Amino acid sequence: MFFASDNAGPAHPSIAEALVHANTGYQMPYGKDTIMDQVRDRLRTIFEAPEAAIYLVATGTAANSLSLATYCQPWQTVFCSPVAHINEDECNSPEFYMGGAKLTLVGDSDKMTPAALRAAMGHDARIAVHSAQPGPLSITQATEKGRIYTCDEIAALSAIAADLGQPTHLDGARFANALVALGCTPAEMTWKAGVDVVSFGGTKNGCVGVEAVIFFDPAKAWEFELRRKRGAHLFSKHRYLSAQMLAYLEGGLWLDLAKRSNARMALLADGLRKIPGTSFLHDPQANIVFANLPRAAHKRLMQAGARYYLTSGDLDGADEDELLTARLVCDWSLPEAEITRFLEIAAG
Amino acid sequence: MFFASDNAGPAHPSIAEALVHANTGYQMPYGKDTIMDQVRDRLRTIFEAPEAAIYLVATGTAANSLSLATYCQPWQTVFCSPVAHINEDECNSPEFYMGGAKLTLVGDSDKMTPAALRAAMGHDARIAVHSAQPGPLSITQATEKGRIYTCDEIAALSAIAADLGQPTHLDGARFANALVALGCTPAEMTWKAGVDVVSFGGTKNGCVGVEAVIFFDPAKAWEFELRRKRGAHLFSKHRYLSAQMLAYLEGGLWLDLAKRSNARMALLADGLRKIPGTSFLHDPQANIVFANLPRAAHKRLMQAGARYYLTSGDLDGADEDELLTARLVCDWSLPEAEITRFLEIAAG
Amino acid sequence: MFFASDNAGPAHPSIAEALVHANTGYQMPYGKDTIMDQVRDRLRTIFEAPEAAIYLVATGTAANSLSLATYCQPWQTVFCSPVAHINEDECNSPEFYMGGAKLTLVGDSDKMTPAALRAAMGHDARIAVHSAQPGPLSITQATEKGRIYTCDEIAALSAIAADLGQPTHLDGARFANALVALGCTPAEMTWKAGVDVVSFGGTKNGCVGVEAVIFFDPAKAWEFELRRKRGAHLFSKHRYLSAQMLAYLEGGLWLDLAKRSNARMALLADGLRKIPGTSFLHDPQANIVFANLPRAAHKRLMQAGARYYLTSGDLDGADEDELLTARLVCDWSLPEAEITRFLEIAAG
Amino acid sequence: MFFASDNAGPAHPSIAEALVHANTGYQMPYGKDTIMDQVRDRLRTIFEAPEAAIYLVATGTAANSLSLATYCQPWQTVFCSPVAHINEDECNSPEFYMGGAKLTLVGDSDKMTPAALRAAMGHDARIAVHSAQPGPLSITQATEKGRIYTCDEIAALSAIAADLGQPTHLDGARFANALVALGCTPAEMTWKAGVDVVSFGGTKNGCVGVEAVIFFDPAKAWEFELRRKRGAHLFSKHRYLSAQMLAYLEGGLWLDLAKRSNARMALLADGLRKIPGTSFLHDPQANIVFANLPRAAHKRLMQAGARYYLTSGDLDGADEDELLTARLVCDWSLPEAEITRFLEIAAG
Repeated sequence: MFFASDNAGPAHPSIAEALVHANTGYQMPYGKDTIMDQVRDRLRTIFEAPEAAIYLVATGTAANSLSLATYCQPWQTVFCSPVAHINEDECNSPEFYMGGAKLTLVGDSDKMTPAALRAAMGHDARIAVHSAQPGPLSITQATEKGRIYTCDEIAALSAIAADLGQPTHLDGARFANALVALGCTPAEMTWKAGVDVVSFGGTKNGCVGVEAVIFFDPAKAWEFELRRKRGAHLFSKHRYLSAQMLAYLEGGLWLDLAKRSNARMALLADGLRKIPGTSFLHDPQANIVFANLPRAAHKRLMQAGARYYLTSGDLDGADEDELLTARLVCDWSLPEAEITRFLEIAAG
Repeated sequence: MFFASDNAGPAHPSIAEALVHANTGYQMPYGKDTIMDQVRDRLRTIFEAPEAAIYLVATGTAANSLSLATYCQPWQTVFCSPVAHINEDECNSPEFYMGGAKLTLVGDSDKMTPAALRAAMGHDARIAVHSAQPGPLSITQATEKGRIYTCDEIAALSAIAADLGQPTHLDGARFANALVALGCTPAEMTWKAGVDVVSFGGTKNGCVGVEAVIFFDPAKAWEFELRRKRGAHLFSKHRYLSAQMLAYLEGGLWLDLAKRSNARMALLADGLRKIPGTSFLHDPQANIVFANLPRAAHKRLMQAGARYYLTSGDLDGADEDELLTARLVCDWSLPEAEITRFLEIAAG
Repeated sequence: MFFASDNAGPAHPSIAEALVHANTGYQMPYGKDTIMDQVRDRLRTIFEAPEAAIYLVATGTAANSLSLATYCQPWQTVFCSPVAHINEDECNSPEFYMGGAKLTLVGDSDKMTPAALRAAMGHDARIAVHSAQPGPLSITQATEKGRIYTCDEIAALSAIAADLGQPTHLDGARFANALVALGCTPAEMTWKAGVDVVSFGGTKNGCVGVEAVIFFDPAKAWEFELRRKRGAHLFSKHRYLSAQMLAYLEGGLWLDLAKRSNARMALLADGLRKIPGTSFLHDPQANIVFANLPRAAHKRLMQAGARYYLTSGDLDGADEDELLTARLVCDWSLPEAEITRFLEIAAG
Repeated sequence: MFFASDNAGPAHPSIAEALVHANTGYQMPYGKDTIMDQVRDRLRTIFEAPEAAIYLVATGTAANSLSLATYCQPWQTVFCSPVAHINEDECNSPEFYMGGAKLTLVGDSDKMTPAALRAAMGHDARIAVHSAQPGPLSITQATEKGRIYTCDEIAALSAIAADLGQPTHLDGARFANALVALGCTPAEMTWKAGVDVVSFGGTKNGCVGVEAVIFFDPAKAWEFELRRKRGAHLFSKHRYLSAQMLAYLEGGLWLDLAKRSNARMALLADGLRKIPGTSFLHDPQANIVFANLPRAAHKRLMQAGARYYLTSGDLDGADEDELLTARLVCDWSLPEAEITRFLEIAAG
């Protein structure tokens, strides 16, 4: 009953096999492997972006930090949600890669609104050389709270950034989960909605450790390559990144896995809804939910070995009925039986 | 009628004369001048801190950025008010000097409260290596809104930082204005209230361009010296910084000048209070006030040559009675007659 | 006939299999996997260093940059050979991670001498705050020219650094190749010779992409963890780094692979010696040699599909007898038959 | 008898007076003062560069670091002499401002030669993303050894940089000393010889503390302004920088002062030449010389209160005839009588 994250399950067997399959003979190092040529072609086709510059790195933080650094000068500020991964979970990595640029937190929710973004970008004090200059917008899709921006919502936000001449970055650590939930095309969710660069996640959705960075405009491609190398993120035996990504894309595996984890979450949420007193911070849209359950239910679950984080409240406490909030995440490999068991124990 | 800032008036004549007076013969460069020995002695006496490590730089931003960098690791975050100078007016200089550390904005006011600071520092997500680690607290005294923390308020905030093992920095660009308003001693407003390092401002209070950085614990003195040099803020002809600071301290000039600019502000505020419909965001405590005046009054003032910034609203507009907020600052050199004239025009 | 590098061959099958084997069930992310516990134990035993702090990253550049940054302040300088990987092949990654520290190049050879190091460290100008302050020593073992420092040579160099209070870093991208050539223990080549931190290479010696960073003194362990995360080098699905390293250590595979590539090089060098007119820049000691061959031989080899770099001279040129220098590297997977064929073609 | 540096004497009285003269009424802060308008006009005329972007900072290190950072990407390397001030005397300030770019040391002399520069820039290993990318050239004029590049020599070097698409920076901390020695125009020594940006020194030549940064192509002007602010080098009371620079330029004072210090050096060198056994590392061309004198002479001089640095050898030692090298610098304020006295004591 592992619901703590989608970064603790195994990779899909096809991806592990792809590593073994790639493990023969010599391949040119540093991204010049022939598998990478296929990855590039495949992603350009999937994104309907024949000119896109495409790179692989091994961690989502690297994808985000390197993308943002390529578009953000050190005297600028990135606009993002207060709960964005780049703000809360990357130990100042974006600031490090950007040479000391700032993050400006927009609104107080996981989903930025145009009004909040406009207010943040149009700050009265943003004059002359004194304040941080406006820089890129970064949207997390799906959000850290498990919600999804519609393509129109993305377009509305990116248009505000574009008005200031600023590009839009999409942190797509859970890109596939959002995409299959929306039922749109990758192009619709990105460049057609004004997105300039995407961190296209693989790791949380069944890979060993690989993320693509996709620049729809290749103007800064060479700069990105230098930044990646300088960041120590250029793999010599790059074929093993390429092989993962190719297997991930092959036959739509990436979409299947996301559908599976979203479906698991739907099953879990449906079950929880039937338990009296249970509620959600938001209706789940992808593979994450924040659910309020009575302390007694949490105690039973933890005792039975369920793994997840409480984001409010404390397990220790006398009042068995007090509601404590749990962050529950379903990864692709989670067996349905585990969900059934979780629900049974939660129901008491 | 210059009310736009306290950085546009002349230096006090004694300070300019001190530069001329110092301008004779050879003096060892880089802070080894004999005048600096006197500055060090004088400040140690004034602060009742015989062990303090004391340095001079030419700008307030340098004083703040270098102080914070000495106490904040690149993976940490500084806690400050959203309107702190270090957040709004230094173009990412602190982040640059700190190597990409973050600023965490505490509450939504110029004066941080213990509750807001505790909430910001105790963030649930501040776990493991993922989030920025807690770093120093930075208090602006007087605040950018012209308000003052009492010594007890400073002590309450610094105690929260100390609980996390973190030091407290005081941005004292307007140190003297706050001090004379409180009527306490420099020691009471700093180390006795838990402050570890002070940016002790001279520039805004009648100097040409000089700020002292005062570390009450000299443990990081040598590191600071290296950081200052690396930041290109070590003056070869350092005597001209020393001479300013010595003249500033001589005979309590620094206190006299602050009393004068605070008194000017009191005069201005008293006058404004008598104009019907006028109000303040906060009662003025030092030498800054944010005053709401009708558009018509602003138009008359601007036309008569008054210089100041509107911080809300737009001078152009039909409604002559609409209240627009002005930021009004009195520097030491502002003639009383200018205030009288300003008030007459404002009254209409 | 691939002699261009040891980063283009496949991983050893055991290592690829280990990835598949590890690919089951949930494992705690971010280095808390149970496989990492075994890696830690194993490396502590191998290095006779029960207190060592041990971490895994995916690239050699990350291992070097993060290690050095942990020990080098931004106002210091690292001492290394002019041909060190950290100087020539990492696109300023160490400088980036160290926040702008400098590299001081010692002597003009791949192997630093005590005299050259003493001269570089004792620079007359290194006074006061003006010059870069002395920082760590970084030794590349085996060197980029394929040569090896004896344990005594390492000890002599590290003693000079220690005299200035500075630690010693060993860039061991080819640690195993050096170790088996010397026939000493890992402890003898490292901490017993005054080394404080090692980049312990796996990638060039048969892994997919993994390097260990080993601190013999764990005092800076937590700082390293924060730096690794901030550098975006902390893997969420860390088990796949651990699994590689465990398989690499298992049954002494790492030593076997190094012996194999060194033996291939010995075979190659013995063959080359028999070809009249051939000479070496240095006698090969590990798995790299720089060999002078006539232009005609290079032309024959390249035409037959041999892959390697010329480090001096140009293939195009009339004089068939002119000697051009080739950098030849043997990796563990290089078949003996390829060497035989290479030698036959070279001999003409 | 102060010969230790040209940074320890007083400012010229006209410059100190200019500070007092400027010290009246309100002036717009942050470089918008009316005196700066005159400085800009004057320097554009002097340099025959009507489009030049011109800024003032207070230290030479700031001028150099900010100029180089504006032209050098973090993954590039600056080419300079090993004894350049930016390499030896700025505690990694350029590396800090450039975000971790490298300095590549060209040749082994204070004056770079075209051959050495070509060799350094054309390094075989400078391939792909692995090595630092070529960045700007930085020429020190006059050099730290007191020598001067002819305009043709500057042009020959800058042409090599331009071939790689790289700009040329001139560290002119002693710009005036070089200019009057060459007897050419400022334009001839800079943009007509291929120089793109100049650190135009005032501090060492009679100012209190001011240097101009002059970009002949204003394309990066706004970026420089942001970098200056972010570096904490933008003065609020900027008029005091402007006033110094204006007085420095007024009536050719800057040229007079440089002629004076060069003449003092000529007098000193002429006298030293007459002392048997005395020799120079280089014939003095500006206001610095490195002179070999017997230990006995040094002892007499030091005892009599002469101040200067020995750059080789040790005052303590038995052999009274052993030659020790002194670095002797003449500043504008050095009285002729002090030189006469120095020579008498040196002669014994």
